[in-house]
Amino acid sequence: MSRLSTYMAQNKSRFIDELMDFISIPSVSALPEHGHDVERAALWVKSKLEKIGMENCQLLETGGHPAVYADWCHARHKPTIMIYGHFDVQPADPLELWRQPPFSPIIEDNRIIGRGASDDKGNMLIPIIALEALLATCDSLPVNVKCLFEGQEEIGSPQMPELIANHRDLFACQMVFNADSVQWSPDQPALILGLRGLVGIQIDLYSASQDVHSGTFGGTFLNPIHALANLVDSLHNPDGSVAVAGFYDDVKPISETELELFKKVPFDETALMNKLGVEKLWGETGYPPLHRAWYRPCLDINGIWGGFQGNDLKTIIPASAHAKLSCRLVPDQHPRRILDLLKAHLEKKCPDQVRIKLSQFESTALPYRISHDHPGNLIAARVLSEIYNRTPLHIRMGFSVPICGWFLKYLKAHTIGFGFGLDDECIHAPNEFFRLSSFEKGQQAWCRLLQELGGVAPES
Amino acid sequence: MSRLSTYMAQNKSRFIDELMDFISIPSVSALPEHGHDVERAALWVKSKLEKIGMENCQLLETGGHPAVYADWCHARHKPTIMIYGHFDVQPADPLELWRQPPFSPIIEDNRIIGRGASDDKGNMLIPIIALEALLATCDSLPVNVKCLFEGQEEIGSPQMPELIANHRDLFACQMVFNADSVQWSPDQPALILGLRGLVGIQIDLYSASQDVHSGTFGGTFLNPIHALANLVDSLHNPDGSVAVAGFYDDVKPISETELELFKKVPFDETALMNKLGVEKLWGETGYPPLHRAWYRPCLDINGIWGGFQGNDLKTIIPASAHAKLSCRLVPDQHPRRILDLLKAHLEKKCPDQVRIKLSQFESTALPYRISHDHPGNLIAARVLSEIYNRTPLHIRMGFSVPICGWFLKYLKAHTIGFGFGLDDECIHAPNEFFRLSSFEKGQQAWCRLLQELGGVAPES
Repeated sequence: MSRLSTYMAQNKSRFIDELMDFISIPSVSALPEHGHDVERAALWVKSKLEKIGMENCQLLETGGHPAVYADWCHARHKPTIMIYGHFDVQPADPLELWRQPPFSPIIEDNRIIGRGASDDKGNMLIPIIALEALLATCDSLPVNVKCLFEGQEEIGSPQMPELIANHRDLFACQMVFNADSVQWSPDQPALILGLRGLVGIQIDLYSASQDVHSGTFGGTFLNPIHALANLVDSLHNPDGSVAVAGFYDDVKPISETELELFKKVPFDETALMNKLGVEKLWGETGYPPLHRAWYRPCLDINGIWGGFQGNDLKTIIPASAHAKLSCRLVPDQHPRRILDLLKAHLEKKCPDQVRIKLSQFESTALPYRISHDHPGNLIAARVLSEIYNRTPLHIRMGFSVPICGWFLKYLKAHTIGFGFGLDDECIHAPNEFFRLSSFEKGQQAWCRLLQELGGVAPES
Repeated sequence: MSRLSTYMAQNKSRFIDELMDFISIPSVSALPEHGHDVERAALWVKSKLEKIGMENCQLLETGGHPAVYADWCHARHKPTIMIYGHFDVQPADPLELWRQPPFSPIIEDNRIIGRGASDDKGNMLIPIIALEALLATCDSLPVNVKCLFEGQEEIGSPQMPELIANHRDLFACQMVFNADSVQWSPDQPALILGLRGLVGIQIDLYSASQDVHSGTFGGTFLNPIHALANLVDSLHNPDGSVAVAGFYDDVKPISETELELFKKVPFDETALMNKLGVEKLWGETGYPPLHRAWYRPCLDINGIWGGFQGNDLKTIIPASAHAKLSCRLVPDQHPRRILDLLKAHLEKKCPDQVRIKLSQFESTALPYRISHDHPGNLIAARVLSEIYNRTPLHIRMGFSVPICGWFLKYLKAHTIGFGFGLDDECIHAPNEFFRLSSFEKGQQAWCRLLQELGGVAPES
């Protein structure tokens, strides 16, 4: 490790400069006017991969924002892993809340501040630096490595499932390490054993052909807002559980092993309440808050609207009322089946005095689960324990990372979260930052991970 | 009547010209940039009243848009009546839907088209023309007449209660005739025996201190939209009745007499459904649609909103959710008591995981009722029967005319609707129009009304 450590130390400030340069490209995938910048970021990544000695470096066309691929596959009899990350970023607005321009990163208090610093430019540059350091000091890698970096993660990766499906051979690997991931705290590592899935639907209810005077007509026909409130209310039972018939049918109980691991996770209810700014938590009876967030599915209305929203009162009965609904799913719920159950519930409960239209949202995600003793997790746990001098927690996440489901579906490869973001880093918000200590610790961790993986025999 | 008829016939086209001139003043009370035009309209009315020989013509300051007052009180031993109307109009937008500029009136197919043609400039000019014709041909009026025309009806007459309360002596009268009123159809007259009252409240529910990610936090605390849907749904029983405790306590049953009169009103359910554009009517079980609209109170959500309303899905749990609620009241419900009941219901039903804020809207109206055998109604019925050659229907209206309540409260005078609008005249909408036949018939009717009133002894 001595030559490697020396290389890391000698190039430390250059690595930071490169991250600053990478962040300064405003690769906002959601905004068409930044389409060219997303491509610039792709070319920046490709050029960096070429420079460090990766092979087959190329932009992959997707029909939308491109992906970048590279590999190095000369480690005979060693496993092949994929490194995943993304070089697109969230929009920076509201700009007025940034203390400096979001794409002119600065360093302050050992933090690099700028849009994408943590999510995901800092985190995805880390494994590239590890690859550079290993290639520079050993002239080879301890394992076969394929890199897949995408430019559309922040808009739901619309073309990625097709890209992965169409490149099964090129992308074939034993497992994926996801650089777009997090640790528990600055000094407590964590491994993610599960993510919730996602499925959503828009409800549109229509009644009169136009907004009408609520004085003249109030009481004569069904106000679509009333129908919508009834329908929305019908989705939950008084005990907080989801009232859609069959909703929980495919929910698998947590294994005894994972339950034991879960019990080791320190959970501070007051801290959660403070974070949310609420005086009481609430949810499905019989499950504590963290259990509900990680192991139980849920259903939320993300938006509702109908009628007059301006100042004062406008006495109308609106022609329509609308709601956006999404469910977070857990293994082995399936988005398609949940969607069917939702539709059946809503159509059955909708009174026939209003017309209902249901439209599924494009973004869906399969719930994802990986065993704590998956070989990738065991190695990652060893590495993290060594780097942090502390055993990793085994956690889940309530949100969805759709690509984990697609890698599993098309490549039959599980994904191990191996990123160094922390949940206070203002991702998707103004003044996003990344700790330089995480940047550095991550580089050591990735070097160790690749070395440890070199000791594992490839699966046949 | 011969000299009067001759006068009417000779001046017919000038009256139309005057109405066109009156309509061309864009006296939109809701828009601050038209404040000066509302005053111009007030001066136009005052000048017209002076010219025809009315006395004490004056603008009354209100703190907002002015009112116009005039009187002629030399009919000894005759009753004193008040004529009410308004010279302000609704905004004209959407302008692109007008076939000609809304304040450049035209005549087409014996209709005068322009903003305010029916509501209320055409209808309020009619009694002024009747006064002119009587004064011109008889040099006197058959009754004592006070005119009160206001400039803030379309914004809820915020300063009118105080104006009326402060001018009880000046405005003292036996009864009020409201020129801002309607008939049943072009050849069927009607008298209005009741109007519903109004009271409204805004519900604001607050949960987390900001919008949060529904993946990370979904299931851990109460989504304020869910709480709002439950609260809104709790306001009605499955049978369509209002579920607020005590809501119906003060609702007086309709008198046998009025019920008999109601039975004579032809009601076409299909026509109502076509008008609304719905396939089914719906409401409180046990009451037919027209009964519900006229004789039963109701509660409507006029607007609801919370969370994301844009395209596609944004997976948030919003910090807050909101609804605007209003009730139409019938005699003898009181806005203040209903408000108290509503607040008690909402506060009781609101789960303690969210914070609730309730804010009353300024606009309220007392429900209003007048007996079919009120002297004013008996005279109006005689006049309308004569003019239309048909007995008037006795109807109610579902909407609110707050000023009727204020006249009753401060002047102890009932208001008789005596206007000639029809419900197809696009009031408050593009291409508002008024039938020239109504304009002319109205002038005859008002002359006859004033003459008939001259035969009635003043109340002591």
